[in-house]
Amino acid sequence: MARAGTLYGVGVGPGDPELMTLKAARILAAAPVVAYFAKSGRTGNARTIVEGALGPAAEEMRLDYPFTTEIPVSDPRYLPEMATFYDDAAARVGARLEAGTDVAVLCEGDPLFYGSYMYLHDRLAGRYTCEVVPGITAMSGCWARAGRPMTRGDDVLCVLSGTMAEDRLAERLAGADAAVIMKAGLNLAKIRAALQRAGKLGRAVYVERGTTAQERLVPLAELADERGPYFSLVLVPTERRTV
Amino acid sequence: MARAGTLYGVGVGPGDPELMTLKAARILAAAPVVAYFAKSGRTGNARTIVEGALGPAAEEMRLDYPFTTEIPVSDPRYLPEMATFYDDAAARVGARLEAGTDVAVLCEGDPLFYGSYMYLHDRLAGRYTCEVVPGITAMSGCWARAGRPMTRGDDVLCVLSGTMAEDRLAERLAGADAAVIMKAGLNLAKIRAALQRAGKLGRAVYVERGTTAQERLVPLAELADERGPYFSLVLVPTERRTV
Repeated sequence: MARAGTLYGVGVGPGDPELMTLKAARILAAAPVVAYFAKSGRTGNARTIVEGALGPAAEEMRLDYPFTTEIPVSDPRYLPEMATFYDDAAARVGARLEAGTDVAVLCEGDPLFYGSYMYLHDRLAGRYTCEVVPGITAMSGCWARAGRPMTRGDDVLCVLSGTMAEDRLAERLAGADAAVIMKAGLNLAKIRAALQRAGKLGRAVYVERGTTAQERLVPLAELADERGPYFSLVLVPTERRTV
Repeated sequence: MARAGTLYGVGVGPGDPELMTLKAARILAAAPVVAYFAKSGRTGNARTIVEGALGPAAEEMRLDYPFTTEIPVSDPRYLPEMATFYDDAAARVGARLEAGTDVAVLCEGDPLFYGSYMYLHDRLAGRYTCEVVPGITAMSGCWARAGRPMTRGDDVLCVLSGTMAEDRLAERLAGADAAVIMKAGLNLAKIRAALQRAGKLGRAVYVERGTTAQERLVPLAELADERGPYFSLVLVPTERRTV
């Protein structure tokens, strides 16, 4: 029987293709099968980032999300349908590994940090050799572009979600030296209010599609928009300057 | 008068040289001057990582820390001496920029995330063109090696320091879905106690010199050591599994 293939979870970084690691570039150039999640009819962000980085003979395995319009996570259909979808995706990837072929799964940012690669990892890492290649996270890409030191010395950093309730957000923001608020675009009014209550609105920076050609970077207090895209976040850099 | 040079703050990642980005590799191969912090008599971790990645004509600018033995941050001499040291380092780098030469400053991990590059950035970014190249953080490198999904969905991640008081650590750990505790090695007993109180010792993973040849990765509950090196951290991955 053939030896099973290796599963690679490959972080491709926040958007700028040059922010891939040397290791990701090497693995992608050699991978016989490259799998990635995408919405139906779209190229997929991760796939867009690696354009030009795949080997000429690479076989692409699209894993199309089941919903063409967004279904909220609170919808009772959401979790069972997603579980079935990830089971099927894992079975497709697993079949190739079983036959002895390596599969590289693309992941925007870092695979184990809010990435959907994890749902394949959960299902396959116990059965196959697996190697995770870390990637530059969206937040690192954004704070590099903002040019703002985020954390110093013994600062506490909290990574929060814009979907959290305003009270909980305000409380966490008040207790952290620095913060990042993910999923910011659909929750701007609430995030502004929470930052105001925590006394930190003045230092907050809003970043949309950081490190890509469509990047937008604005102090949150000056942002007039009521709504932004999903791929947006708010940075709240530390206030401390020790030396 | 010559146009001033550009200051590059270059993240070189957590230790494995292949975890540099393509952008870092390009900038380092072309940089006429490469500056880095190091302890007297040591090569410096960042410099070790880029061995073989610098151009043949690159001029190296060592920035030697003033203390040969560790002085605690609480010592009254510490802050003024460090401020003077960073002022002098910024003056050396600034002189080259002023003369029209680009300078790349190496930084382990990510330059704006607990990195000492920030102290040059504070002093120079207002006066010179400056570009920050994000790097893979130590924590990303470590959780990739541990192969443990860290955060999912709307999880809150807290990055804490092992130097914090036990009560505060325990409280933060209890309130976060996932956590990373930096500066773990010198604070192992306290970290164990805080994790125990938060009910999370069982999922904690200790990682020493992650992604390097000297890497050590042990479930914290099984680690017998009383003390570890400075470059060590504790990962507390999320417990949630949504789908």
